[in-house]
Amino acid sequence: MEPRIDRLSKQIEDSGVDAYVVTMSPNVYYFTGSISGGRLIVTPKEEPTLLVGRLNLTCAQDQAKGCGVKPYTRKEVIDLMVGELSGANPKTVGFDEISLNMYNDLKQKIPDVELKAAPEIVRNMRMVKDEDEIRLMRRAAELADLGMDAIKDCLRVGIRENEVAAEAAYAMRKEGADALAFPFIVVSGPRSAYPHGGVTDRKIKEGEFVTIDMGAGYKEYKTDITRTFIVGPPTEKQAEIYETVLSANLSALQKIREGVPGTEVHAEAERVIGEAQYGEYFIHGLGHGVGLEVHEGPSLGKSSKDILEIGNVVTNEPGIYIPGYGGVRIEDTVLVTSSDPVCLTKTPKDLDAMRV
Amino acid sequence: MEPRIDRLSKQIEDSGVDAYVVTMSPNVYYFTGSISGGRLIVTPKEEPTLLVGRLNLTCAQDQAKGCGVKPYTRKEVIDLMVGELSGANPKTVGFDEISLNMYNDLKQKIPDVELKAAPEIVRNMRMVKDEDEIRLMRRAAELADLGMDAIKDCLRVGIRENEVAAEAAYAMRKEGADALAFPFIVVSGPRSAYPHGGVTDRKIKEGEFVTIDMGAGYKEYKTDITRTFIVGPPTEKQAEIYETVLSANLSALQKIREGVPGTEVHAEAERVIGEAQYGEYFIHGLGHGVGLEVHEGPSLGKSSKDILEIGNVVTNEPGIYIPGYGGVRIEDTVLVTSSDPVCLTKTPKDLDAMRV
Repeated sequence: MEPRIDRLSKQIEDSGVDAYVVTMSPNVYYFTGSISGGRLIVTPKEEPTLLVGRLNLTCAQDQAKGCGVKPYTRKEVIDLMVGELSGANPKTVGFDEISLNMYNDLKQKIPDVELKAAPEIVRNMRMVKDEDEIRLMRRAAELADLGMDAIKDCLRVGIRENEVAAEAAYAMRKEGADALAFPFIVVSGPRSAYPHGGVTDRKIKEGEFVTIDMGAGYKEYKTDITRTFIVGPPTEKQAEIYETVLSANLSALQKIREGVPGTEVHAEAERVIGEAQYGEYFIHGLGHGVGLEVHEGPSLGKSSKDILEIGNVVTNEPGIYIPGYGGVRIEDTVLVTSSDPVCLTKTPKDLDAMRV
Repeated sequence: MEPRIDRLSKQIEDSGVDAYVVTMSPNVYYFTGSISGGRLIVTPKEEPTLLVGRLNLTCAQDQAKGCGVKPYTRKEVIDLMVGELSGANPKTVGFDEISLNMYNDLKQKIPDVELKAAPEIVRNMRMVKDEDEIRLMRRAAELADLGMDAIKDCLRVGIRENEVAAEAAYAMRKEGADALAFPFIVVSGPRSAYPHGGVTDRKIKEGEFVTIDMGAGYKEYKTDITRTFIVGPPTEKQAEIYETVLSANLSALQKIREGVPGTEVHAEAERVIGEAQYGEYFIHGLGHGVGLEVHEGPSLGKSSKDILEIGNVVTNEPGIYIPGYGGVRIEDTVLVTSSDPVCLTKTPKDLDAMRV
């Protein structure tokens, strides 16, 4: 397969820009294989150049493929960027991300060049995973499942949220995870009504929902899984909420297929939760792409403009959150294939499996 | 003490802006006590408003103090920001951080208002820690020391970098860390020449340097510590490099006092390393502030403009990195007091203590 950096170089011209600057570290990794970060300057004709701080120069020289590597100091970086761009004599330069400060600094040097955020070029490439990426993500998902196994083993009345995170992170790292996909979320009792509630030292009590949202990082790739456990036998209301979210998850899963708009997958979960009269408590989009970052394209939400393609990897994560009471979310990382969707995360999610 | 959000409100007028928008989550936490993120609009006269996405509304309503809380959807957020700002009728609005996209979206609605990045207002406030913050950072530092103890216990020939991270993270979380301050760095052998080399599944070999850079997160506060271990008896060259970095660390530590410029502290480490003929291998600034974020003000580096104040908490982290050979870094988190500097991280760092 053609190197990604060459594909970017070719796509630049079709994208209405004359040159492109990659500034986000996951994107630098995607194109060069280096974890050094930096600023990768890509033009249609010349060899790409990766500008890196001295701190990461050795790392970039060892790892980066398909580009030249040059060091910069903070004072020089704008001039060096301008220098690298000048060969292409661009009218318009695209960036994966650009701050107002970088914009102003560059505009002082090249006032006649249009500078614009053009994240979609890279977003669209990264959205479709190749075989190597899918292999790494399968492994990351297996590691996340091992983390969930460890949680199931340790979760009981009296354990603290941070101790639950300890056990899961330990299990994943011991088996080969080299990072967490993102900081743990362990929210128990009324805190389970916070979709993004972090971790505290709160002790878990009998009868509570405990939602754990976490993922393993494996060779730069991420995975994302959420399960809500119930400590003790569920009440009727807990069971109803849980089964509603599970139905939404399973119905939406069947929509995760090539050619289906992201809005339609979200709408399916919304329909199921709405029919159960919990619509007002489903307060976020159904899912997002996962890969080198835990949030990337495509989006499965109300305002998504994406149509699913083979090779997309997305989360499917409906939830119900009732302020003061608690919440449930069930999330898997799902691969879009030429036939049925494949959950890469495989931890059981039926209600019986969630009782601890 | 006057609430931080009121102090911000008063400082706005002295800072050349008529209103201020806080967009970074650690800053929102600093002013409101909420981990919800969002956009906090502060004007000199009216009650501040925190705009949050629906996802984090309950969290913000439960946690945020000193401000009103209003929900937004992605489509509405720019109009809501403009609405909240309009009461102050501002000519200039400052932001802790502003992307080119947010700038362009706002400019369409309020073309005559100057919008500018003004991070220094909040940076300067956060740089000086109060007693509560110092108490939390002391605990975060203790937890990091427990992590280093666990590393010393497990480090041996044949263990993998990810397994070392597993043991340290486990020890910190079990004792109360609710997060990692940042993703682990465990770099062994030639990889120890990468200051920021992440973690791999590489097996550690006899005679190698192993540098571990990590920290605990405790109730939103972070700490930062690095130690370089040597697996087996050090060679003469290893000992020389190690002792040079240690001398630089100890000499620079004595400069971390009220009234001393950040440049001067850095220069002291540079002097020691330079005199030992390793100057070209010290490739980064000596240190940075730590607090709610692992990188914040003040800076201890060549281009620092900061003068140290009582209540600053900074890292002191000289290093020597020799491409293809390896590297050493020794880092503590240090509190500036009215008398001697205090290392909050206390793991031993003399050469004998680093042999495993």
